[in-house]
This record gives sequence, C-alpha cells and structure tokens, in this order.
Amino acid sequence: MRYELYYWPSIQGRGEFVRLALEDAGADYVDVARDPQRGPAAVNQFFQAAAFDHPPFAPPFLKAGRVVIAQTANILLYLGPRLRLIPKNEIIRFWAHQLQLTLADWVAEVHQVHHPITAELHYEDQKKEAKRCAEYFIRGRLPRYLGYFEDILKRNSKGSEYVLGKKATYVDLSLFQMIEGLRYAFPRAMTQLERTHPRIVVLRDRIARRRRLAAYLASPRRIPFNQEGIFRHYPELDK
Amino acid sequence: MRYELYYWPSIQGRGEFVRLALEDAGADYVDVARDPQRGPAAVNQFFQAAAFDHPPFAPPFLKAGRVVIAQTANILLYLGPRLRLIPKNEIIRFWAHQLQLTLADWVAEVHQVHHPITAELHYEDQKKEAKRCAEYFIRGRLPRYLGYFEDILKRNSKGSEYVLGKKATYVDLSLFQMIEGLRYAFPRAMTQLERTHPRIVVLRDRIARRRRLAAYLASPRRIPFNQEGIFRHYPELDK
Repeated sequence: MRYELYYWPSIQGRGEFVRLALEDAGADYVDVARDPQRGPAAVNQFFQAAAFDHPPFAPPFLKAGRVVIAQTANILLYLGPRLRLIPKNEIIRFWAHQLQLTLADWVAEVHQVHHPITAELHYEDQKKEAKRCAEYFIRGRLPRYLGYFEDILKRNSKGSEYVLGKKATYVDLSLFQMIEGLRYAFPRAMTQLERTHPRIVVLRDRIARRRRLAAYLASPRRIPFNQEGIFRHYPELDK
Repeated sequence: MRYELYYWPSIQGRGEFVRLALEDAGADYVDVARDPQRGPAAVNQFFQAAAFDHPPFAPPFLKAGRVVIAQTANILLYLGPRLRLIPKNEIIRFWAHQLQLTLADWVAEVHQVHHPITAELHYEDQKKEAKRCAEYFIRGRLPRYLGYFEDILKRNSKGSEYVLGKKATYVDLSLFQMIEGLRYAFPRAMTQLERTHPRIVVLRDRIARRRRLAAYLASPRRIPFNQEGIFRHYPELDK
C-alpha cells in the first residue's frame, strides 16, 4: 500500500503528526504537495473533486487506496494498527486515541495563543490579544498539559518507558512533536517547565534516537519550524 | 450494561452529545453528578482516585464496567456500535468519527467566541476581545461549517435523509445539538443563515421528532441552555 498524505507543503503543522508515524514505520508514502510530479495544486484539486464521497473539512487527509480519511487523530487511529504503532487490544486503542485527542486539544490551544481572535487575520492584526492569551497559556494551560502527560508517564513507568504499553506508539511520536514545537515556540517557558517534567524530556530524547525517525529528522523531508505553522516563535509571547 | 456518565450537572456542555446518544438509544445509564445518591462530588472523587489506570484530562468521561473512556468523540466512537447508532462497516465508522471530530472543532470555536483569551477568566473579563472574535466567527467560520454539513447532507441525499448511511447515527444527533445550541447562542445570525442551509434545518426537525429523543427533550433530564455552558447567548455577540 502506498499512502498519499495531503497537506500544506511549507509547514509541519498538523500534518507532521502523520508524517512522523509514516516515517517511523518506514511506510511507503507520498507527501503529495511536496512531490515534484504533483505539487500543492493537487491538494486543492482534491477538494474540488465533486464526485468525491467523503470530503474532508480541511487538510491533513490521507488516501489509502480508495479510502480517504481526515482529522489528524482519526488518521492515526486508522494508521496505528496498519503501521504497527499500537497494540492489538481494543481498550488500549481507545486509550491511545483519547490521549491523541487530548494532544489535539493542546495543539489547538497553542494555535489560539497567536490567533486568539480568528485564523482569518494575521498574527500582526491580533498581537495585543495574543499577548494576553499567551500569559494565561504559559501560566495555566501549558503546565496543566505537561503535568498531565508527566503523570501518565509516571503511571506507566512500572511497565515501560513509553506513554502506554511496552513499546513506542504513535502517541509517543506525537508527544515528541509537541515538545519539539513548544521548545521552538516558547524556549524560555519550556526551559523552566522541563525541570519539573523530567519524564517527558527523557521520552522526547528516546524518541529522537529511533533509527528511522532520527534519519527523517536529519533529512530535508523534515520542514524546519517557521512562522507559518502552529508552533511559532514570537519572543514577546514567551515571557 | 449500566453506563455511568461523568459530567458537570448544571450544563449541557460537551456531555450533552453523549447524553443524546444514550437517551436516543434508550440505554441504561446514570448521569452520575445528577444522581441523588452520587452527586457532583463523585466527579471530583473520580479524578482523585490515584489507583486509576486511564485518567481523563477532563470530563466528560464514561464508565462502562471496568473501562473508562474520555473525550466526547472517543466516547461516541465507543458507544456507537454498542448503542446501534452506527453501521457495521469499518470505513463508514472512520467517516462518522471524522465528522464528529469536525463537530468537536466547531464546538471549540463556539467556546472560543466567548472565551478568546482564556477559559480561566470570566466572559466579563474578555468582553472586548470576544466581540471582535464573534464578528469573524459569524461572518466566516459559522457559514463555513454550516455549508460543509449542508453539502454532506446533499451528497448523501440520494441514499437517505441523514448525514451518512440510511439511518440516523450519533453524528445526526450531534448535528441536531449543534443547531440547537447555535440557535440559542446566535438567534439573529442563525435566522439568516438557516435560509440558505435548508437540509440542516430539515435534519434538525427530523431528529427532534424521534420518539425517545423527543421524550428526553421534554423531560427535566434535559438541562436548559444557560450562560455557563458552551452555547451562551450574549446579544452583543450576535450581530
């Protein structure tokens, strides 16, 4: 099966959570908008295909043969078993998905920090509100989410060094990406907060060392963080 | 199986999407915080239970025997087949879940309208920002989401009068709730927008007539909309 990932070609964004799973598993896939023979227009063309049964509301979406699946966490729910990035047990799969949805909420709140009014305006047009939003995020929600996942790692620590079960799952890959993004966006806040969340840092390092993932991260396929994605570094928001 | 729903007792909120599924299916369940023998303290006690394997980040969560599941869309993914509110086909289930996650994004954006800065402050402390947020929401995102679901209903209209497949699913119940909430929060905007989204209105009416659901909606179990939930009516935001 050759998977097709449809996502914006110039940012990590939500698509990166899917890219990490595909790369870590060594899956055969095309990142359509970045493929020389397809390009960004292919993502828009896809949206305009009227005959299409299950239209996504927004990218990312994954094409697997005739199946099209959107919503990042849903794509990972689909890919998890197929890429062997999740155990077979059904209840464990619901648990993993629950954690992935909590990560998705966290991602949305990170986006809200630089776009508190609307995604339709540039950051520069809502800077004042963003500054206020960032203060509460860094003081309140950021430590709350970090504390939650630190606790999850602690609870699972008797059994393993991962978020759940005994092996790395797509949830670990996503938590790695979360930490990478937060370090880029809020380096000051994260330097502080990582001291009191040691298990998350250890997990991040362990994931970064995985063979295929390390090769991906060092390759040109890994788009650098930038000021267009979800994780953005505005020093005035990192106080 | 007697299900236990853990959610705040005084609001519809995200828990209502689960309540509607349980009620429509005639399931045996306890709304724990509203149960005279348990009460709101039971929700907090649950969080403090340290021995607990899969702690939720936030309510709502569902207890089904020894299984505990959180995240609204995840709960419905779990309940759907068990309550016969979703067809058996696996790909259809991913499609339904994708739509449910899109509804969840929509719900989060509705919440952001009255809390653009942070959920930690009252609406009154972020009124100015909320007003600006509401203008963009009503002009941009609200019609975009309505248009998307109108289009989904149109695409499925050859086969049936529901969002997917030939029978009502939990997604139809959730879309009903979305429209009810939006009518409460933004009556002016919705009066306008419903004219150009007739299929959504027809679906809303069809769901409201379902026997068990109609009985629930007329009962004291249905908490009235109020200014503490996700859907709030602030006339200054409905322009």
